[in-house]
Amino acid sequence: MCSNSIGKRFVLTIFGESHGKCVGVVVDGCPPGLPLKEEDIQKELDKRKPSKQFYSTTRVEEDKVNILSGVFNGYTTGAPICMLVWNRGGESEVYEEFKWKPRPGHADYPAYVKYGGYHDYRGGGIFSSRITVGFVAAGAIAKKLLKQVGVEVLAHVVEIGGVKIEKKPTIQEIKEKVYSNPLRCVDLEAAKKMEEKILKAKEEGDSVGGVVEAIALNVPPGVGEPIFGSLDAEIAKFLFCIPAVKGVEFGVGFKAARMKGSENNDEYVVKDGRITTLTNNSGGILGGMSTGMPITVRVAFKPPSSIPKKQRTVDLKRMENTTLEVKGRYDVCFVPRAVPIVEAVVANVLIDYILPLGIVKLGRAKN
Amino acid sequence: MCSNSIGKRFVLTIFGESHGKCVGVVVDGCPPGLPLKEEDIQKELDKRKPSKQFYSTTRVEEDKVNILSGVFNGYTTGAPICMLVWNRGGESEVYEEFKWKPRPGHADYPAYVKYGGYHDYRGGGIFSSRITVGFVAAGAIAKKLLKQVGVEVLAHVVEIGGVKIEKKPTIQEIKEKVYSNPLRCVDLEAAKKMEEKILKAKEEGDSVGGVVEAIALNVPPGVGEPIFGSLDAEIAKFLFCIPAVKGVEFGVGFKAARMKGSENNDEYVVKDGRITTLTNNSGGILGGMSTGMPITVRVAFKPPSSIPKKQRTVDLKRMENTTLEVKGRYDVCFVPRAVPIVEAVVANVLIDYILPLGIVKLGRAKN
Amino acid sequence: MCSNSIGKRFVLTIFGESHGKCVGVVVDGCPPGLPLKEEDIQKELDKRKPSKQFYSTTRVEEDKVNILSGVFNGYTTGAPICMLVWNRGGESEVYEEFKWKPRPGHADYPAYVKYGGYHDYRGGGIFSSRITVGFVAAGAIAKKLLKQVGVEVLAHVVEIGGVKIEKKPTIQEIKEKVYSNPLRCVDLEAAKKMEEKILKAKEEGDSVGGVVEAIALNVPPGVGEPIFGSLDAEIAKFLFCIPAVKGVEFGVGFKAARMKGSENNDEYVVKDGRITTLTNNSGGILGGMSTGMPITVRVAFKPPSSIPKKQRTVDLKRMENTTLEVKGRYDVCFVPRAVPIVEAVVANVLIDYILPLGIVKLGRAKN
Amino acid sequence: MCSNSIGKRFVLTIFGESHGKCVGVVVDGCPPGLPLKEEDIQKELDKRKPSKQFYSTTRVEEDKVNILSGVFNGYTTGAPICMLVWNRGGESEVYEEFKWKPRPGHADYPAYVKYGGYHDYRGGGIFSSRITVGFVAAGAIAKKLLKQVGVEVLAHVVEIGGVKIEKKPTIQEIKEKVYSNPLRCVDLEAAKKMEEKILKAKEEGDSVGGVVEAIALNVPPGVGEPIFGSLDAEIAKFLFCIPAVKGVEFGVGFKAARMKGSENNDEYVVKDGRITTLTNNSGGILGGMSTGMPITVRVAFKPPSSIPKKQRTVDLKRMENTTLEVKGRYDVCFVPRAVPIVEAVVANVLIDYILPLGIVKLGRAKN
Repeated sequence: MCSNSIGKRFVLTIFGESHGKCVGVVVDGCPPGLPLKEEDIQKELDKRKPSKQFYSTTRVEEDKVNILSGVFNGYTTGAPICMLVWNRGGESEVYEEFKWKPRPGHADYPAYVKYGGYHDYRGGGIFSSRITVGFVAAGAIAKKLLKQVGVEVLAHVVEIGGVKIEKKPTIQEIKEKVYSNPLRCVDLEAAKKMEEKILKAKEEGDSVGGVVEAIALNVPPGVGEPIFGSLDAEIAKFLFCIPAVKGVEFGVGFKAARMKGSENNDEYVVKDGRITTLTNNSGGILGGMSTGMPITVRVAFKPPSSIPKKQRTVDLKRMENTTLEVKGRYDVCFVPRAVPIVEAVVANVLIDYILPLGIVKLGRAKN
Repeated sequence: MCSNSIGKRFVLTIFGESHGKCVGVVVDGCPPGLPLKEEDIQKELDKRKPSKQFYSTTRVEEDKVNILSGVFNGYTTGAPICMLVWNRGGESEVYEEFKWKPRPGHADYPAYVKYGGYHDYRGGGIFSSRITVGFVAAGAIAKKLLKQVGVEVLAHVVEIGGVKIEKKPTIQEIKEKVYSNPLRCVDLEAAKKMEEKILKAKEEGDSVGGVVEAIALNVPPGVGEPIFGSLDAEIAKFLFCIPAVKGVEFGVGFKAARMKGSENNDEYVVKDGRITTLTNNSGGILGGMSTGMPITVRVAFKPPSSIPKKQRTVDLKRMENTTLEVKGRYDVCFVPRAVPIVEAVVANVLIDYILPLGIVKLGRAKN
Repeated sequence: MCSNSIGKRFVLTIFGESHGKCVGVVVDGCPPGLPLKEEDIQKELDKRKPSKQFYSTTRVEEDKVNILSGVFNGYTTGAPICMLVWNRGGESEVYEEFKWKPRPGHADYPAYVKYGGYHDYRGGGIFSSRITVGFVAAGAIAKKLLKQVGVEVLAHVVEIGGVKIEKKPTIQEIKEKVYSNPLRCVDLEAAKKMEEKILKAKEEGDSVGGVVEAIALNVPPGVGEPIFGSLDAEIAKFLFCIPAVKGVEFGVGFKAARMKGSENNDEYVVKDGRITTLTNNSGGILGGMSTGMPITVRVAFKPPSSIPKKQRTVDLKRMENTTLEVKGRYDVCFVPRAVPIVEAVVANVLIDYILPLGIVKLGRAKN
Repeated sequence: MCSNSIGKRFVLTIFGESHGKCVGVVVDGCPPGLPLKEEDIQKELDKRKPSKQFYSTTRVEEDKVNILSGVFNGYTTGAPICMLVWNRGGESEVYEEFKWKPRPGHADYPAYVKYGGYHDYRGGGIFSSRITVGFVAAGAIAKKLLKQVGVEVLAHVVEIGGVKIEKKPTIQEIKEKVYSNPLRCVDLEAAKKMEEKILKAKEEGDSVGGVVEAIALNVPPGVGEPIFGSLDAEIAKFLFCIPAVKGVEFGVGFKAARMKGSENNDEYVVKDGRITTLTNNSGGILGGMSTGMPITVRVAFKPPSSIPKKQRTVDLKRMENTTLEVKGRYDVCFVPRAVPIVEAVVANVLIDYILPLGIVKLGRAKN
């Protein structure tokens, strides 16, 4: 089975490896007439860059995007848009050791089995988080298209290293503040504690995980498809394609399992001539379709698997026990970097459902 | 976008409505030569039947399966297998009210918007849990195919109405006991408390939710595909297609977000000449591929939305506030019935990935 | 690989066998609000019935359609539409012989190899022309949808048994006369000669083939997709899925290979304020997209393979040479019956491309 | 609908434009362990280069391929393989005129309508034959994989400008001679006449078409899928995705329509312990599956549409009649260049069907 494409109407096809020549994406289905410049993409990619603070060593990850096709005279043409980021020389040699010594928590071992030893093991190859460069590049286009119909996707950190935000920020606060602090967390007090957790883990040669929440605003009611086209199912699928994701929940999520129907049901009321719900426990999705309320989804990220701490593993060649210490740079905490990725993923799925509705209008070219 | 099909190699196409003539499924991709009888399917469908105890009124849900195609002389032929359950007369008239008064927590309102008022609103139509009859029927075939390669899928209730099981049951306990009690919960003390919660909710005209855990055994390492074919992503997607699911997590799931890398990483060791991990926090999946350890996934179900308690809603025709009380039979708790559905879903996804590996061998027909 | 579904937006999933319980189709993607009755489908299926004259024995092929889902109160709901025709008892026993003696020209031998002997060999099983019942049933819906935007699909016989029509009929003639004669040929003189060819072949225990031409009217320009979504490519694909098709050509087709560019190119002119072409050698498709001119496609059908004449074949069990005479009823010429099938196929493909354009408007249900 | 991907198991995703930065392809599904170098691809691409003789002006079309991903240490990794050819500066300015004056026989007009004037009209943009660079690059991989199981795909010119080859060449003759003459025609006498036709058309500022035949050898019986996965249907679809193709026929093709069943049926015999057919009128495919005999398919190419001869067209801006003369280089005859393209297309489809059979064995990496 092939697996590097996703979407039905706005389709991403991903290619590239962490330490190969490049990482890239082909986006098929973008309608013609959208103004698009490399800067539009770059702006989003820049949000994904690691904060030096939470990174064990400085890596130059320039990630300058090149649009190779599908754009002409500043507008999308309707043809597939290939976008590519050339890789800068990474420290590939440190990975030689992992060819035969799978890093715990990484794809190394199952990849070794699946690919018969032929996979590009350097930096995780295709299993690296670098592959999400394509998610974000495509998401930049998705967001521009969604903007045409007023839909906006936000995301922010709600938990890192066991520290949760104390109070739910307003939409306005998220919009204004999320990218102004390196934690991508709007609750600055919580952010301070999260930072401490990260720095402590860094000292210990360890890593921490956390939770990102995304919110999609102004999605009209009725977006989604029944059964196997459920909007939440597709969002969940794409989110689980982000490396390190271990859980996804909508609305109150797992908490719903502890509520009674009378508590969990979101009652309807007419407000200002429009139908709305008094609560939004469902996270804006019922029966796989949007209700018109904000779509809310939370994504759990495990702590990065590459850590300097000594760990037990096996030598695949000799089939014997051994240990390993992952040297070189590593992300102590990936969660802040995941914020623009989660945003992009939700945007990519939403535009895939919204394009066929025919409400994105881009007009004809001027003579 | 169309949405009634799922899978790449073992493909389900679903049809039917809660109060229409039937519910059914076409399964494409079952290899030729699998012995298959209607009883094989029926056995699984019977596990999905409601326990009268947890149901507000008695409904006759016979659910006798008919195999219409794809089986000849007792063996699958390789052609698509259409399986169908004729609906018995439900109490359709009680649903007339909901045509214009959407039930809180149900798909009624977004479906009304999406389908322009043409959807079959009786019993939720295509959005009803009855559609999972097809999931289970297909799953019965998937399980028989998985058995050929030693893969087994189990599921059990781990939480209902806020009551969690106290201790993790062994695989053996789940295998032996899960279908012998109506709660589908192996911890009988917890089951007793869950039962009390359900009966109390029934008294109150309310409903309760819970959590089901599935475990897939003996999946060889390396099953899955990178990026958009991630095994966990596909399992999650299909699980979110079950009505009422609000959260999905693998391994330690959301708890992973609170762990350090050194705690969360599953260290490798050679044991009896095979590679295994000391822990299984990952739930048997890394980088979208199986590790060879048991695959574990937990699914959160919200409480059923149809409850007799009076709730606020709107009159869509008059665009004014009103209330409604859902009369007639309802599931006080759907969680025990979800156990065979979750099993079937996981089985359907696994066989979709395992069939292309060419390890399911069914042989040639005898002369 | 699975193969019983086709289409992206208007998706057919086929099931059933020639001598199994039924043949049927699930249509996914029909928008809500289309008035649909079983008679609408039946009318098209009736056109597919064999003319007793061209059939060696009388078979009762009632083919009464049942709509099992997706229609409520006389309108499509937007949910998948399952349609099914129960099979009447065929003469299955005559097929026992072919289990081990593949009929020349039939799928018997490759099916035997592919399915390991488990396929339903009776009447060709899933490889029978009966499977096109589903094509036609779906096509009936496609045609109704196309009518909403003024698109019409016609087809007629242009050649049988080496007899070609003498002059090209007008659109009006095809519309009025094609289903009024059993040959489905508008040129009545040619039809008479074709009839003679068929009856002569019947006498000889032989069969004849022919060519069907389809014409799609009023397809607006720009329908289709570049490269792998080419409209002609999809039409060709679906046409080759009809049993016995050996060639497909658009516009002047193979003749184009003998023309010069200056002869073949269709020059543009403005006529009545609209752009049109002086000729239509392209058959209404350029670069995989419609030009706004009629889409014309010709389909070559080989003579039916089942013939009473003695033929050489092999005994698969003993791996030795033998002969066989196909007893029982058979189609001396399938071409007239193929006319509604070809129409349906072209209609199914066109609606698949036209639905996403958002020009099919069905309105909202009345209160 | 999206349309830049094709295949289920060996998937091509195409991008790029004739006068954009590049043309390329992402191939997903190539198994790990295939030795692959850029020269392997280049060799095939070189066969696609225009012969200066049949080209009106000299264009430097270097077409040097770059493998950007999916290959590591000289072997495929199992990850998607992105291959790209950078475009050299074409004479884009000559195309300015065609923005508003659609060239007869080209995609210009329907593309203008479909893309609202935003399409890249230079050199046909995505509708250019340059897009087949990706077909051939992918085909080079497909051929290497097919070679593992002994399958070989050949193609040769059988007709140009009305001149047909006199006698059917042997397989051996095609293998040895087809790429040694610029016509890609094995019958050298016919080739001479074809050449004259081309040179005459060149003098007249005109163009000629022709027919290419492909032959696939050693495809085992039973490859293909019933109904919508018919092998001939998929081959036909992909062939119609090559620009300028107007007809496709298998085996005797349209001639079958004039044959009787007793003439057309290929009788079976046991020969050297294997089942074979006395004739191969079916072109090696029955019921959508291979019979084990050579697969033969013929493809009709219309004459290139871009010709210097003055033609009538319209001014889209002013909606009035005008004329145009296509200046600059053009292909007088594309048919010889189509030979490696047709080969590649057939190879791409075959490997898509053969990979899931599990017979392509590439082994594990050496330690």
